[in-house]
Amino acid sequence: MRLFNSTTIRLFHRTFTQNIVPPNAITKLHKMSTVGKPINCKAAVSYKPNAPLVLDTITVDPPKSHEVRIKIINTAICHTDAYTLSGKDAEGLFPCVLGHEGAGIVESVGEGVTSVKVGDHVIPLYTAECGVCKFCKSGKTNLCGSVRATQGKGVMPDGTSRFHDSKGQSLYHFMGCSTFSEYTVVADVSVVAIDQTAPLESVCLLGCGVTTGYGAAIKTANVQKGDTVAVFGAGTVGLSVVQGAHSRGASRIIIVDINDNKETVSREFGATDFINPTKLSEGQTIVDKLVEMTDGGLDFTFDCTGNVDVMRSALEACHKGWGQSVIIGVADAGKEISTRPFQLVTGRVWKGSAFGGIKGRSEMGGLIKDYQEKKLKVDEFITARRPFSEINEGFEDLHNGTCLRTVLKF
Amino acid sequence: MRLFNSTTIRLFHRTFTQNIVPPNAITKLHKMSTVGKPINCKAAVSYKPNAPLVLDTITVDPPKSHEVRIKIINTAICHTDAYTLSGKDAEGLFPCVLGHEGAGIVESVGEGVTSVKVGDHVIPLYTAECGVCKFCKSGKTNLCGSVRATQGKGVMPDGTSRFHDSKGQSLYHFMGCSTFSEYTVVADVSVVAIDQTAPLESVCLLGCGVTTGYGAAIKTANVQKGDTVAVFGAGTVGLSVVQGAHSRGASRIIIVDINDNKETVSREFGATDFINPTKLSEGQTIVDKLVEMTDGGLDFTFDCTGNVDVMRSALEACHKGWGQSVIIGVADAGKEISTRPFQLVTGRVWKGSAFGGIKGRSEMGGLIKDYQEKKLKVDEFITARRPFSEINEGFEDLHNGTCLRTVLKF
Ligand SMILES: NC(=O)c1ccc[n+]([C@@H]2O[C@H](COP(=O)([O-])OP(=O)(O)OC[C@H]3O[C@@H](n4cnc5c(N)ncnc54)[C@H](O)[C@@H]3O)[C@@H](O)[C@H]2O)c1
Ligand SMILES: NC(=O)c1ccc[n+]([C@@H]2O[C@H](COP(=O)([O-])OP(=O)(O)OC[C@H]3O[C@@H](n4cnc5c(N)ncnc54)[C@H](O)[C@@H]3O)[C@@H](O)[C@H]2O)c1
Ligand SMILES: [Zn+2]
Ligand SMILES: [Zn+2]
Ligand SMILES: [Zn+2]
Ligand SMILES: [Zn+2]
Repeated sequence: MRLFNSTTIRLFHRTFTQNIVPPNAITKLHKMSTVGKPINCKAAVSYKPNAPLVLDTITVDPPKSHEVRIKIINTAICHTDAYTLSGKDAEGLFPCVLGHEGAGIVESVGEGVTSVKVGDHVIPLYTAECGVCKFCKSGKTNLCGSVRATQGKGVMPDGTSRFHDSKGQSLYHFMGCSTFSEYTVVADVSVVAIDQTAPLESVCLLGCGVTTGYGAAIKTANVQKGDTVAVFGAGTVGLSVVQGAHSRGASRIIIVDINDNKETVSREFGATDFINPTKLSEGQTIVDKLVEMTDGGLDFTFDCTGNVDVMRSALEACHKGWGQSVIIGVADAGKEISTRPFQLVTGRVWKGSAFGGIKGRSEMGGLIKDYQEKKLKVDEFITARRPFSEINEGFEDLHNGTCLRTVLKF
Repeated sequence: MRLFNSTTIRLFHRTFTQNIVPPNAITKLHKMSTVGKPINCKAAVSYKPNAPLVLDTITVDPPKSHEVRIKIINTAICHTDAYTLSGKDAEGLFPCVLGHEGAGIVESVGEGVTSVKVGDHVIPLYTAECGVCKFCKSGKTNLCGSVRATQGKGVMPDGTSRFHDSKGQSLYHFMGCSTFSEYTVVADVSVVAIDQTAPLESVCLLGCGVTTGYGAAIKTANVQKGDTVAVFGAGTVGLSVVQGAHSRGASRIIIVDINDNKETVSREFGATDFINPTKLSEGQTIVDKLVEMTDGGLDFTFDCTGNVDVMRSALEACHKGWGQSVIIGVADAGKEISTRPFQLVTGRVWKGSAFGGIKGRSEMGGLIKDYQEKKLKVDEFITARRPFSEINEGFEDLHNGTCLRTVLKF
């Protein structure tokens, strides 16, 4: 499917000649004094499902109380953007500004914002952290409840949008981030300031995929030295699980992927074995194969495909008595997981992970540090770099079989 | 369904006039010196599925190496016996000697047995504990692997049976216990010696139901002070979960049962609320009701019904972010559990429990102590006492709606 057509090229050109912000943007920003005023800037608008994004100039209103306006410098494209764009996401709202894996610089803040200040380098967080809600206070989950309801409805906590297209039409926000716009507005609980020396082009990936996989291994599963691990799906999420497991000293890390092209990169990230489940011996299932390879099954398995049949195999390949399977992949709307309850009665545990169980505001600093100390690979996920204007080509990259992440630059 | 018919009455009479062992059996036993010899004794034999048990005199061979012959004093009837007897258990083997919730006295031991001795009061364990297998050494599960394979095949670890009926036909063992026989032989890893002062009539229930529910609450789930708990099914297992949760100081313990007769007993065991899911307001589901009652869902839920639809409701009634659902009930063969994976991705955990996660040999002593110190109710589960000869009536008791446990006495 070719997503990029002549209309978008036209729109791109129109946009590109307006409101160009030079690389040393932040200094100029202050001089231009956009604070408190709407900003006209380029953005990729999704007007309807299953259609190319439209490059347009949109208006981004100033942040209200407890809101932060961010100049996005880099954004990557995640499968969740493609999923919502495809129309399969029953909760997808259009027209909207997609994008949730980005990094940028605070342009201005609304009243009452204390956690970030103008000029801070930041990562927007689709999983907020308020610190005071029932969820945050529980100490048991990263799923903050503070902005959940309005975020799900594509609006800011006061129930309104900060985005309008060139015809004045209001646009929905997406996952509380909307990084496919040169400027975006997020709730102050949905953004974290980071070390200014971290390259935004790389750490934008910590906004979703890398953090999700790495956190699932080191937080949700809490893999220990010597554990055996199988990871289904060698995308950015799965390979990040691999590095989390590897950093913990897992004795065996088996990648299961239907795409043989993923073997090399899997091993580079720390996998000890690569299995293509479509190429097993006659009559052997992937569960049989994994149980045989590991003398009874795995300590931990992870679904990073979103396929419910894979989720079942991942559970059933766990070791009786203690094996845990973590679902990370997002299944198509309406799809259900199933198994015989005996699988659980005999000691397997089925759980899931959102954003790797990571609390974005309190734990992002640690991940950035892991990256800076070369404990966490991030640059290695960038398989393409494009100007923001090539966002539709970026969506096409997702289908090329070797893509991990395409990073766009405004 | 009336299980007791004239054939069984006839067989019972034949049996009862032979080999009657008086109450002070153990002293006499030594005098009779049965050691090393086959014993003829009464037993209830299941010749085929869905038919009354046949009271017969069977021959019980002496224990071989690492085996223990036990004189069963009391045995209760559990739903798992009824399930296998019904023929629904795909792994049920006939003819066999059912029963797995019993208590008795060691009559003799085979070579190499060191853990119990003649005269010890004991409880047979369908979940063995060898201490040296991969499972026992893991420290993560009570599911010992030592005798699993042969136990599942209805034979002793050497592959043979110790039971023969009056016609010389070999009978299968059941769950490594076969307590529906006055004498039984078990593996030495499948039996635990207990305090001689504990009444066998009561503590036989620790051989399955009570331990299963209590352990599921205090070990598998590890309920903490202030937690909210919902228990589906107020049988012996469910009510034992209730007492485990109550002993931990759970703030709310909601029993969900379709039988209103269970309300009083549920409250006696510590439930704070009783809900009949068939009597909710129009359009309300049990999940809605529980989520509403607990401001978002429960910290822990337990299925003690064996119904896969109930298992799903139990999971979905868990609190987002941390709620854990424990499956204890045994589902009919072929039945599967299902849910949307999103339930797990948003932090719910699905697990199971076998024998309450209790390691029978190392932890039974603690449960007996809890019972003796009146921290654990056991006597309260005995809703009928019958001579062993009334075992078929005991199976009928299961259907009367107020039955918890019928305890039989040899
Ligand atoms: N839970 C969360 O918080 C969260 C966050 C981000 C992404 N996700 C989800 O994680 C999943 C993975 O994301 P990604 O960016 O790594 O995706 P990706 O498409 O880059 O990688 C998926 C990999 O799975 C492989 N695959 C597909 N079907 C398979 C099968 N049947 N068996 C084995 N391998 C198979 C593909 O070949 C590919 O290598 C997606 O479903 C995404 O929506 C979840
Ligand atoms: N996992 C294990 O180790 C283990 C051990 C023992 C028993 N079990 C299983 O535990 C289950 C409970 O055993 P028990 O002896 O307490 O059984 P029981 O029959 O005495 O109790 C079951 C209760 O569930 C109620 N019930 C039935 N359908 C229901 C529904 N749809 N909603 C709500 N309540 C419903 C019944 O009214 C009854 O009160 C059985 O499935 C048994 O096989 C498992
Ligand atoms: Zn994402
Ligand atoms: Zn919060
Ligand atoms: Zn039982
Ligand atoms: Zn063992």
